[in-house]
Amino acid sequence: MTAYDNDNIFAKILRGEMPSNKIYEDEHVFAFMDIMPRGDGHTLVIPKVPARSITDIDPSDLADLIKGVQKVAQAAKTGMDADGLTIQQFNETAGGQIVFHIHFHVIPRWEGVKMRPPASAMEDPAVLEANAEKIRAAFA
Amino acid sequence: MTAYDNDNIFAKILRGEMPSNKIYEDEHVFAFMDIMPRGDGHTLVIPKVPARSITDIDPSDLADLIKGVQKVAQAAKTGMDADGLTIQQFNETAGGQIVFHIHFHVIPRWEGVKMRPPASAMEDPAVLEANAEKIRAAFA
Repeated sequence: MTAYDNDNIFAKILRGEMPSNKIYEDEHVFAFMDIMPRGDGHTLVIPKVPARSITDIDPSDLADLIKGVQKVAQAAKTGMDADGLTIQQFNETAGGQIVFHIHFHVIPRWEGVKMRPPASAMEDPAVLEANAEKIRAAFA
Repeated sequence: MTAYDNDNIFAKILRGEMPSNKIYEDEHVFAFMDIMPRGDGHTLVIPKVPARSITDIDPSDLADLIKGVQKVAQAAKTGMDADGLTIQQFNETAGGQIVFHIHFHVIPRWEGVKMRPPASAMEDPAVLEANAEKIRAAFA
């Protein structure tokens, strides 16, 4: 098991050392927009505890994380007026992981609209923030 | 919200009305091989409670489900000697869902090996069972 790296970009976002379009935060999780979205409203949900992947996170922390994922999923579906949701979680480079702090992708989906390829293009910051605002509004 | 259909194929597997290559079962979850695997050892994990998707499952049932997913993920990675894992969970047709009983896909991954397209080919039953046995052995 490779050790957790405290300088990964999501750890920096959690510490406020890097900016993000925050969607939601509670005692256990932090959610923010993916800057290279595979679909409009693509949100990432991460735990506040340091953990690299699904094989090293404490089971009770994972349970808290998935409850946060569910809240974000409901808000993303409502706020983005989506027809469905694709949830993904990648572990290690072979599994598709790029940032080594465990995270769930919450991707709003619409009939007939394919997901964009992973990490294909940086989104316009104004579009990111507009979508973030739609999802935040669905929490209210 | 569309209602849960008690005659979906995973409900039938849970009731023993349809066969499956069972990997693991506990009080809360049931895990079995995907018959159209996107990678060798592709396993599905489902809750015993009736739920359609991430937006209608009770949060505590979802927490129990993800703990089962974690156990299966660890066993699949070890048993299949994988380099990583891709976890997916699809909601509604637009999100990629085909069977409307919530399920997590646990897909072992190896460096340089792409996932096969969704539902691309039925696996040889002997191969399915051989991979199932490797993952079961990792639980022991």
